[in-house]
Amino acid sequence: MGFDFTFEISGSDTRSQARCGRLHTPHGVIRTPVFAPVGTQATVKTLTPRDLETLGADLILANTYHLYLRPGADRIARLGGLHHFMAWPHPILTDSGGFQVFSLAHRRSLDDDGVTFRSHIDGSEHRFTPETAVRAQEELGADIIMCLDECGDALHREALQAALGRTHVWADRCRAAQQRGDQALFGILQGGIYPDLRRESARFLTALDFPGYAIGGLSVGETKKQMYAALEATTPELPIGRPRYLMGVGAPEDILEGVARGVDMFDCVLPTRVARNGGFLTRQGRLNIRNAQFAEDVSPVELDCTCYACQHFSRAYMRHLFQAGEILGLRLATLHNLHFMLQFMAQVRAAISSATFTRFKDQFLASYRVADQHARFAQSEERRAQRSKAR
Amino acid sequence: MGFDFTFEISGSDTRSQARCGRLHTPHGVIRTPVFAPVGTQATVKTLTPRDLETLGADLILANTYHLYLRPGADRIARLGGLHHFMAWPHPILTDSGGFQVFSLAHRRSLDDDGVTFRSHIDGSEHRFTPETAVRAQEELGADIIMCLDECGDALHREALQAALGRTHVWADRCRAAQQRGDQALFGILQGGIYPDLRRESARFLTALDFPGYAIGGLSVGETKKQMYAALEATTPELPIGRPRYLMGVGAPEDILEGVARGVDMFDCVLPTRVARNGGFLTRQGRLNIRNAQFAEDVSPVELDCTCYACQHFSRAYMRHLFQAGEILGLRLATLHNLHFMLQFMAQVRAAISSATFTRFKDQFLASYRVADQHARFAQSEERRAQRSKAR
Repeated sequence: MGFDFTFEISGSDTRSQARCGRLHTPHGVIRTPVFAPVGTQATVKTLTPRDLETLGADLILANTYHLYLRPGADRIARLGGLHHFMAWPHPILTDSGGFQVFSLAHRRSLDDDGVTFRSHIDGSEHRFTPETAVRAQEELGADIIMCLDECGDALHREALQAALGRTHVWADRCRAAQQRGDQALFGILQGGIYPDLRRESARFLTALDFPGYAIGGLSVGETKKQMYAALEATTPELPIGRPRYLMGVGAPEDILEGVARGVDMFDCVLPTRVARNGGFLTRQGRLNIRNAQFAEDVSPVELDCTCYACQHFSRAYMRHLFQAGEILGLRLATLHNLHFMLQFMAQVRAAISSATFTRFKDQFLASYRVADQHARFAQSEERRAQRSKAR
Repeated sequence: MGFDFTFEISGSDTRSQARCGRLHTPHGVIRTPVFAPVGTQATVKTLTPRDLETLGADLILANTYHLYLRPGADRIARLGGLHHFMAWPHPILTDSGGFQVFSLAHRRSLDDDGVTFRSHIDGSEHRFTPETAVRAQEELGADIIMCLDECGDALHREALQAALGRTHVWADRCRAAQQRGDQALFGILQGGIYPDLRRESARFLTALDFPGYAIGGLSVGETKKQMYAALEATTPELPIGRPRYLMGVGAPEDILEGVARGVDMFDCVLPTRVARNGGFLTRQGRLNIRNAQFAEDVSPVELDCTCYACQHFSRAYMRHLFQAGEILGLRLATLHNLHFMLQFMAQVRAAISSATFTRFKDQFLASYRVADQHARFAQSEERRAQRSKAR
């Protein structure tokens, strides 16, 4: 009884830990490595399900915290579940809501049993425990669901250790609370940037035998080097035959480094959020369409791009839409960026299949300018170093 | 030399002045009676040209005032003209910009030669004369363009008479200023609610022999009765073989009354603006999707509707999108309302063709609840009556 979430590995790289495969779910197959667009409130902002199908999305993510508060997970259950509600008959993944409780909600109060918080929407009081987080996700009905975890501060070892203990106990309770047989419950590894804590978390959770493992608590302020090192300590501890999901990571360079370290799944608001600020992802890096230099530029955002936006509109028109505050600009930019990401993932999979992943990675990174982030990360690294010295 | 804007009348009603036909333009045929969705800033808000094609739009409107200010009519000309700029290869109509100068711009200063104003965007000073209004529209390159006119207050006879004189002189100047041969320049009739002024305007402008006639200065505060009476005084004065365009009117009941009085073309922001406020047009009248009663309503907005929104989503999901402030809600509502309007116009045309227009009109109005507007208009009528008494 229960759905068999088979994960077939169909190819792997010889010079890295990269692998490609197919994860079977009740709503279809997910080709990995996969990037999941984020549909926080049961909609990938500005797009219809038809748009997402055209783009070739295999999997989307929705946020339990948001949907639990509005319109309510129980309400979505009565309306036939999330797939039916949002008219997306393909795979969906929900997070546990924990991350948003710790980042968005007001007046949090944490104890060993769970976390009480106030809604950022109307101030009403709510409580998540491992059991209620699983119940909410069973009501939503996604194909892949997550254990409730506590992220903690990636850089503070003592706080992290306490959070890790709680996360592990909660993972066990989530597993016990699961009632539906057609959802894959993933355990979430924590441990911040500390290799030994990461290994400890991996060992504890793999002993519980989850159908998949999420790597949480990264891309939350640490440097890229620290993130990659944490990954290196983690993935070798995980069973080969189970999918690995790096939560909240989606910059192309991070995806390549993650895939090289054996990660199969990614999600991130970056391509869609950046789009709504007029940022277009291209093979050369990010392009800010608001720049005056594009005011009379008749070329498309990206010359060889086959997305609807690049096939029909000039940079000048795109810039006009953003300057004029037109919604169509947000939509076209979102279409382009998700097209970019999903084509990029298809190239990653093809490269792994044809045993050319390392060459693909090197070539991509040679031309891709890790613009703002790089500068931003370098700055935060510097600031952190200065702070450490000051202590 | 110059394009021949042939207007073929293919059918007419025996019990009213309704007629249907085909207006030929350089970018294709417009089936009349036609409703033109409004794309103020070179985009019908939230929709792509592909969406509009799927909906069956023959003609869209763009606003000269907005595009002249941003990104600039000269810039659009350098970018290949409006059709190319916005990737809409079908007919476009631009207004002269006059209406927006009088309703949106700041610090207007009107004289017999033109009007000086400040941009509502950045306060910069600009001037429209009949000649510059035509030049801006030639730069934009729409298929149908409008003379610069002065709307005046529909209810104040003396002011209207002065405005009418200016409008007539300007119409003559616009005609003389026209240089391109591939754009149909329409004259705009004014005269407010006064039948004699409307007749005077019709006679003056028809003597100038325009390829089409716009009826301006209505639906700006007068009652529906007054609007219909003004129409009745106007259309019999216009040549049968030229298209008549009732500017800014688009409520279904007004379209039916306009068609019955011999109008061929309509435009209005109503269906798209109402959509962005969560108002859905249906055969029974307007439905406000934010109402709590729809929170768990699994039926589509309109049961027999074939639009993408109604074919895929429940009222409950639509309401969620609006409650959560999601852009997809604006887009789906816009799709539905334009689908409603364009299907409605197709039914109007079919009814005229099959000589059943009057029956169609009566049946439609019997079930269509003219909700808010009716109440609003009745109120304003009452207030006006009280004001008159008080004088």
